[in-house]
Amino acid sequence: MAERANIGILGASGYTGSELLRLLLRHPRIDIALLTADRRAGQTMRDVFPQFSPYALPRLVAIDDLDWPSTGVDLVFCALPHGTTQTVIDALLTAAPHVKVVDLSADFRLFDADAYARWYGHAHRAEALQREAVYGLVEVYREKIKGARLVANPGCYTTCAQLPLLPLIRAGAIAVDEIVIDAKSGVTGAGRAAKEANLFTEVSEGFHAYGVGHHRHMAELDQEFSKAAGRPVVPTFTPHLVPMNRGILSTIYVRGSAGQGAEELHAILVDAYADEPFVHVLPFGEMPQTRHVRGSNMTFIGVAKDRVAGRAIIGSALDNLAKGASGQAVQNMNLMLGYPETLGLEQVALFP
Amino acid sequence: MAERANIGILGASGYTGSELLRLLLRHPRIDIALLTADRRAGQTMRDVFPQFSPYALPRLVAIDDLDWPSTGVDLVFCALPHGTTQTVIDALLTAAPHVKVVDLSADFRLFDADAYARWYGHAHRAEALQREAVYGLVEVYREKIKGARLVANPGCYTTCAQLPLLPLIRAGAIAVDEIVIDAKSGVTGAGRAAKEANLFTEVSEGFHAYGVGHHRHMAELDQEFSKAAGRPVVPTFTPHLVPMNRGILSTIYVRGSAGQGAEELHAILVDAYADEPFVHVLPFGEMPQTRHVRGSNMTFIGVAKDRVAGRAIIGSALDNLAKGASGQAVQNMNLMLGYPETLGLEQVALFP
Amino acid sequence: MAERANIGILGASGYTGSELLRLLLRHPRIDIALLTADRRAGQTMRDVFPQFSPYALPRLVAIDDLDWPSTGVDLVFCALPHGTTQTVIDALLTAAPHVKVVDLSADFRLFDADAYARWYGHAHRAEALQREAVYGLVEVYREKIKGARLVANPGCYTTCAQLPLLPLIRAGAIAVDEIVIDAKSGVTGAGRAAKEANLFTEVSEGFHAYGVGHHRHMAELDQEFSKAAGRPVVPTFTPHLVPMNRGILSTIYVRGSAGQGAEELHAILVDAYADEPFVHVLPFGEMPQTRHVRGSNMTFIGVAKDRVAGRAIIGSALDNLAKGASGQAVQNMNLMLGYPETLGLEQVALFP
Amino acid sequence: MAERANIGILGASGYTGSELLRLLLRHPRIDIALLTADRRAGQTMRDVFPQFSPYALPRLVAIDDLDWPSTGVDLVFCALPHGTTQTVIDALLTAAPHVKVVDLSADFRLFDADAYARWYGHAHRAEALQREAVYGLVEVYREKIKGARLVANPGCYTTCAQLPLLPLIRAGAIAVDEIVIDAKSGVTGAGRAAKEANLFTEVSEGFHAYGVGHHRHMAELDQEFSKAAGRPVVPTFTPHLVPMNRGILSTIYVRGSAGQGAEELHAILVDAYADEPFVHVLPFGEMPQTRHVRGSNMTFIGVAKDRVAGRAIIGSALDNLAKGASGQAVQNMNLMLGYPETLGLEQVALFP
Repeated sequence: MAERANIGILGASGYTGSELLRLLLRHPRIDIALLTADRRAGQTMRDVFPQFSPYALPRLVAIDDLDWPSTGVDLVFCALPHGTTQTVIDALLTAAPHVKVVDLSADFRLFDADAYARWYGHAHRAEALQREAVYGLVEVYREKIKGARLVANPGCYTTCAQLPLLPLIRAGAIAVDEIVIDAKSGVTGAGRAAKEANLFTEVSEGFHAYGVGHHRHMAELDQEFSKAAGRPVVPTFTPHLVPMNRGILSTIYVRGSAGQGAEELHAILVDAYADEPFVHVLPFGEMPQTRHVRGSNMTFIGVAKDRVAGRAIIGSALDNLAKGASGQAVQNMNLMLGYPETLGLEQVALFP
Repeated sequence: MAERANIGILGASGYTGSELLRLLLRHPRIDIALLTADRRAGQTMRDVFPQFSPYALPRLVAIDDLDWPSTGVDLVFCALPHGTTQTVIDALLTAAPHVKVVDLSADFRLFDADAYARWYGHAHRAEALQREAVYGLVEVYREKIKGARLVANPGCYTTCAQLPLLPLIRAGAIAVDEIVIDAKSGVTGAGRAAKEANLFTEVSEGFHAYGVGHHRHMAELDQEFSKAAGRPVVPTFTPHLVPMNRGILSTIYVRGSAGQGAEELHAILVDAYADEPFVHVLPFGEMPQTRHVRGSNMTFIGVAKDRVAGRAIIGSALDNLAKGASGQAVQNMNLMLGYPETLGLEQVALFP
Repeated sequence: MAERANIGILGASGYTGSELLRLLLRHPRIDIALLTADRRAGQTMRDVFPQFSPYALPRLVAIDDLDWPSTGVDLVFCALPHGTTQTVIDALLTAAPHVKVVDLSADFRLFDADAYARWYGHAHRAEALQREAVYGLVEVYREKIKGARLVANPGCYTTCAQLPLLPLIRAGAIAVDEIVIDAKSGVTGAGRAAKEANLFTEVSEGFHAYGVGHHRHMAELDQEFSKAAGRPVVPTFTPHLVPMNRGILSTIYVRGSAGQGAEELHAILVDAYADEPFVHVLPFGEMPQTRHVRGSNMTFIGVAKDRVAGRAIIGSALDNLAKGASGQAVQNMNLMLGYPETLGLEQVALFP
Repeated sequence: MAERANIGILGASGYTGSELLRLLLRHPRIDIALLTADRRAGQTMRDVFPQFSPYALPRLVAIDDLDWPSTGVDLVFCALPHGTTQTVIDALLTAAPHVKVVDLSADFRLFDADAYARWYGHAHRAEALQREAVYGLVEVYREKIKGARLVANPGCYTTCAQLPLLPLIRAGAIAVDEIVIDAKSGVTGAGRAAKEANLFTEVSEGFHAYGVGHHRHMAELDQEFSKAAGRPVVPTFTPHLVPMNRGILSTIYVRGSAGQGAEELHAILVDAYADEPFVHVLPFGEMPQTRHVRGSNMTFIGVAKDRVAGRAIIGSALDNLAKGASGQAVQNMNLMLGYPETLGLEQVALFP
């Protein structure tokens, strides 16, 4: 393992790109060697994100202008839109096979070619890489990630729902056919693209559900829940938009399996995450708030008894840009480069 | 019926009080005769709510200083805290038995003395009035309200959940033991009391659940759902706090009874509310947003298919200060005074 | 004067369009006869603004498809972007010369052809109409508006600054070469166009100035201030963006002329607006808040003493979509149609 | 100088306390030895600020229960309310004279006893310490701070205004009798005390000025500006409340002295701050935004030309809890302990 590594960020003009840069600028063992942003090529980071004005950084370039081997990068974060990503990474790994990649898009999260085609409406364009990719939910796939060349960083909603549910499903502690996930996300989850629906005036002072019954993140939940249960699991999942920048809270309604009360579910989670640096289970009955993990790589999980006998209510909160995207991506990078897993990720939550 | 009526507002310094005043100042057949606010007695409304600065209004007085018969009021809105309300109304109706009362507190919403004692920890202090009171959910109890002297205005969360669910329960169209109500409210629902938890800095840029498993509004839901079902119903209900001022959105998860799909549930609601001025059922598959009912007396309801077979997702949105409190209270007043039900409530939603 | 009038709104899919509709739907003497929105032609208002879902309204049409005489409109509100407006209104008034027009764009606010060309970079395309147009600041030009065919509705920033300053300038009470206007606006002032800069994520939780030293609203201020002073006046003006939807607050720094203290300035304003229904001067020393005029057609003005001798600080607050745009436009309509000036504008502010 | 130091925070349950802890938890050369919070004594930090739940920290204690010498602290941050602070620090330094103190209150910022009495209404209760205290604006008093025992951390508003103005005043580049500072602050500046005026519902979706003509921070500005100018300076200063958590933006209106244009003022600031790690002057004509310094210790300064000849508009932005309070306090601590000035303060701004 190298003492230091050269890092590239593809798609540095979006929010997951800027969040990666925020974290990496203070990481002690990396250098920022490459920043791309096709439509802003030639500009500086301060032109697209003025908060980086005080820092010396490479100028933004276009991906098509790159000669991969000569960039000298050891690892690349790919924060590009779905669809184009698979083509870009395929080209990159063909030209420079030794480069490691953490992909933040959805392109390599589904390992089943049919499931991919069904949810995305076209055959995958890099099927060999799809088979090679490791799903980057660190708390589950840590060992595989250490040896991976291509890691598919999980989605924000799915990380938030999987962390509390996977240990319970694996333990057979809940009725897997009755899982209801009512999820609420801040607006950064929608990215930086200029859309009417995401204007301040359309989002502030209001609340609504979207994508009811057909959100693509469901595919990822189905895959991982089914794998954990050993049989098909199809949860109910409804995302909502909260007038705030960062944060996801999932309120999850479950029924305990034969005899498992809320206290037992809590105990399973406490046990599962006792040694995890970035998953914190609150005392029984306490519920998490998104503001208490803002800007940090933490996930806070709470379990409470429902008044309906046999049912429990689980809360799970993370920062969608940090543990839900760029923070977990850096966590993956640390593992892939053989660094301590928490390096550069120790930042305490910013509240208020 | 009188051409005009003299109106009093008890507790005019809180948000339901100011919202009543906002609506009543433009009501063509009432006069504001009395405004009370014990701790602000002697002050003007502009001292406590500067938006009323341009309007001529009676000075605030203390309830204890009142001689009820000489106030000349025909109808009183009671926007006082729970507990003291029952004592105040008892004294008022003893001194001036002809006065009509719309109570916005929770004091007279439960008609069962035991249920009241169980949820509130003490015996009701005005049991005869508790028996006399009519539950003021207009769309259900319209005829009884017309002849009532004392109307218990329903809670904001409960109005939002009852309007979509009662027709379905009455029709036997859903499995009543599997109802999950995930409710999200703006901060005005917490009132104007100075509490650390409701500071801007504690509420903005974050999201959380509260009162998990034990919110008092559950008592009202249990009562009305059980009555509609003809047997005990205990729904799961979780309230959340949204960083916005006004609005409640309830996302409701239900399973259709034998053969009833989401389309059938939608059809039942369309039919139930075809002639209601303040309940609007959206086209199938569309979900409501709180911002589109802000400041209006409307409830918007939407129904969508869940991808889990046999399940439906229902959205219900209202303004917690309007249809969820003061708007519905004025609607009740109109019925009690024999006025057209929509008088003074025609305001269109304020968006953006 | 007619009992009722047929009204058209050109550009009904923007925020000033929807605000006009909100007000006009409850106006007792008009009918909505025409709604245009070029890019949304064929759709319904509920498609572009779901809050209008419960109301029966004409379908959206494209302006180019109109035959003006056969539309039957008596008065048209023009809420189109700057530049195209002058061409559209010219065509409309050529085809249907009897129609009255209230224009909410900046196209007809400057009466000097040279000033227009200088600020907008091209010669005006309807110079005869530019000469005909009446500047629609009601409190100043009320009598001329009553007889006008084409009224140029003032800008939001400029209405907010002119209402407190014009009486002081006319009275010679302040040093006109030292006026500093520090203005802060909510985000609806930027319209509904999808721009990165107006995304929720770019606007919330932050504050900044924009257009420093070169905002086009300055031209309007220069024109009206110079006219009032009888000599050229060039104020300092800096707009800022506040993370809120509605409202403008202008904090204005002035020096009293020979002997005029802050109290004298206050007295002049109290006197000037004693009989105005939509301008309210607060008691001396009190400062206005935007939230207390939200959704109403009111302007609140406050005057306080600066601790620097001879200087005063003036606050002026209005709702940029109401008195700053659509509310004032309806006020103009009422005058042009011979209706009572306040008709349909009596709504009390929505706070909280 | 020691390798590590034991640190105490007095008043850890407020926002400047929690912000200190956020920064210090990641500072490589300190240990948290003492946390006080009188009303929360006996509780843990996670009880008052759940974001600290994952970290091991000392339990909260009451100041009166302390025996200073036995606490073992080397340096104490005092984040207590004005007034009580002077008594507490006097007692502390009497009992343990070797302890260093960074005081975040206003108690030791004014070095003139008369000025203190005039602004605060009572004689100072620790006059010897008032004389000893060093004003902690690092960029001005760096050398004195290194040797100080008691440092008075500057106010948030005053830091934001002094950083751009002091170099200009010292250079004689602006007319000191015409300075207008229009300042806007986020709500954390008001602290965590439960007051009606700071409720979410009273602050969100609105904007207003407060303390017009008589804010106590003026005393600090007068003192430092007069010192820099060599004669009395009394600026106009108006604070406003922005519906956001963190950040201050000051828009400052100045007139250049004989021949000094906006470009010259900009050049003076560029020169003054060329080597400062936490003051960043933007390119000429660019204006700062508070969001781009959020959570960081940076101050961003911009200078633009006014269209009024001879006048310039200056923008200055910082995070009121960081550089405006706790960040600058840690900067002071680093100097007092002989550490590198930027240690623990390198965090990049959190945007969005």
